[in-house]
Amino acid sequence: MTQINQLFKLAARPVGLPKRSDWSFEEATVAPPADGQILVRVTHISLDPAMRGWMNDARSYIAPVALGEVMRAGGGGEVIASRNPKFAVGDQVVGVFGVQRYALSDGKGVDKVDTSLVPLPVYIGTLGMPGMTAYFGLLDVGELQDGDTVVVSGAAGAVGSVVGQVAKIKGCKVIGIAGGADKCRYLVDELGFDAAIDYKAQDLKKALREHCPKGMNVFFDNVGGEILDSALTCLARGARIVICGAISQYNNTTAVKGPSNYLSLLVYRASMKGMVVFDYASRYGEAMREMAGWMAAGKLKSREHIVEGLETFPDALLKLFAGENTGKLVLKVG
Amino acid sequence: MTQINQLFKLAARPVGLPKRSDWSFEEATVAPPADGQILVRVTHISLDPAMRGWMNDARSYIAPVALGEVMRAGGGGEVIASRNPKFAVGDQVVGVFGVQRYALSDGKGVDKVDTSLVPLPVYIGTLGMPGMTAYFGLLDVGELQDGDTVVVSGAAGAVGSVVGQVAKIKGCKVIGIAGGADKCRYLVDELGFDAAIDYKAQDLKKALREHCPKGMNVFFDNVGGEILDSALTCLARGARIVICGAISQYNNTTAVKGPSNYLSLLVYRASMKGMVVFDYASRYGEAMREMAGWMAAGKLKSREHIVEGLETFPDALLKLFAGENTGKLVLKVG
Repeated sequence: MTQINQLFKLAARPVGLPKRSDWSFEEATVAPPADGQILVRVTHISLDPAMRGWMNDARSYIAPVALGEVMRAGGGGEVIASRNPKFAVGDQVVGVFGVQRYALSDGKGVDKVDTSLVPLPVYIGTLGMPGMTAYFGLLDVGELQDGDTVVVSGAAGAVGSVVGQVAKIKGCKVIGIAGGADKCRYLVDELGFDAAIDYKAQDLKKALREHCPKGMNVFFDNVGGEILDSALTCLARGARIVICGAISQYNNTTAVKGPSNYLSLLVYRASMKGMVVFDYASRYGEAMREMAGWMAAGKLKSREHIVEGLETFPDALLKLFAGENTGKLVLKVG
Repeated sequence: MTQINQLFKLAARPVGLPKRSDWSFEEATVAPPADGQILVRVTHISLDPAMRGWMNDARSYIAPVALGEVMRAGGGGEVIASRNPKFAVGDQVVGVFGVQRYALSDGKGVDKVDTSLVPLPVYIGTLGMPGMTAYFGLLDVGELQDGDTVVVSGAAGAVGSVVGQVAKIKGCKVIGIAGGADKCRYLVDELGFDAAIDYKAQDLKKALREHCPKGMNVFFDNVGGEILDSALTCLARGARIVICGAISQYNNTTAVKGPSNYLSLLVYRASMKGMVVFDYASRYGEAMREMAGWMAAGKLKSREHIVEGLETFPDALLKLFAGENTGKLVLKVG
């Protein structure tokens, strides 16, 4: 009955793009759960841009992963042993289980999910943290209004694709910014965005002006850098910019590129506001119910980009920064 | 009865700091007022950092001054001829009269002021645009709350000195950032700020951490650049940054320095919002009444830095960018 765990521990603070040697890949015997604990066989690991930030030794909205600690990651799996009355063997669960095959947990922050409704990866994507981020970021932080023109960067990613779809469900005009023709086609043809701009092939400022002749009311930013600066040139009066992330800047070896055009906030009486999804934990249920309803009605589509094999983790993570994923990037442990 | 006007017209778009040759200094005969007009003998001209922006041919919250047009400026003076029933000869008035000795006006945007209560320069300072900017920027845009720690940059200037005093009147802790020991002493000893940081002599980030151990709740920014970036490292959760101006950046010959630390907005769930005082025009009366009451009660002090001689205008304006003024910089036409 002894399971052998395999796990990635943080071994070094990355400089620039993380590389395999920034983690150590180890094996260890799995301990049985203590009283109150559950043992989870992790089947799916969530790969998120935020993980890059957690590797830095910097003050942020969450403590950094310590050197020698299992790399932090959200994920899902099956309870295979339980000494916690809230969980039974066989339960499908999601939580922050780390980059490993087996996780012991006291059950805090662990949620049971019904995989007869949607597959488990959806619970770490559209109905998980990225979906919650999109929902509350757009509706609460972005204060979405009827008739708004909404622009989202990283639009083909896990968060961006939900942002755009929710804005469409709410009747808004939606323009996505993504890299590459395939992603742009996906946004318009599959997800029903009004338009998509391929920032790698098009003049972004010009395209934004064309698609948003009155300026954008909401800019939901996952990317930062030049894309944020371009968006700042095309605001409507009173625009709200949601700062969700800045994937273009996470692997910088020099200072983050601040938005040179930030004085547009003054010109357009606009605001730029940061968000962290954890602040909405008490309201996840409300969002889950509404989003699950939209999914059941076929209004909200979820796409997962599945990569297989725990041992591929370092390379799989890099797909995020190379823009290789469309939809939620998930590592299937296998 | 023919008056000779003297005026500064915009002659060139400045590159970097404006120089005398960016204006032409001209003389012209003053025309008598047409029906509905008044003729104002301008006695005081308001010198404001925003004037630098008006000289650029760029889209902003107000049209640029055209080449060949009288340089735009707020100011005050006396009505010396009137064919407008709302104004009588002898009225003291404030308005946007331009950098000139005599101004014809249709009376729109011109307000009569009672100089028996406070001298005219106060009506273009603490009870004028800078005062309105401070009042609405702090209370409305900055959403000042009881117990807030407020930091203001450009604290010894016309806007900053009012921001800090109003925050003190509201019972908040106030730290001013200014350049030089004299200004810092003025803020603490004369205006009652809790502390002042001399950014030229002190380590700003360190000083902010010392004075705001729990971070700042409101940062009212008149300066931008490194000062904004330092402030971003010392926010309290939910902090509001009011973007009023960026005097450090107005004379750049390269791109504006965007705030590299803007991702602190995310870490601290903070917001950065731009403001333009003109949006509050319908509420100026409310602010004027309250601020005049505070002045009468000795709670709000007004200081004007008066420079004399219309012809010194180009050099006088530069005092703003060299940080040579304490309080409201006013050009007395003489």
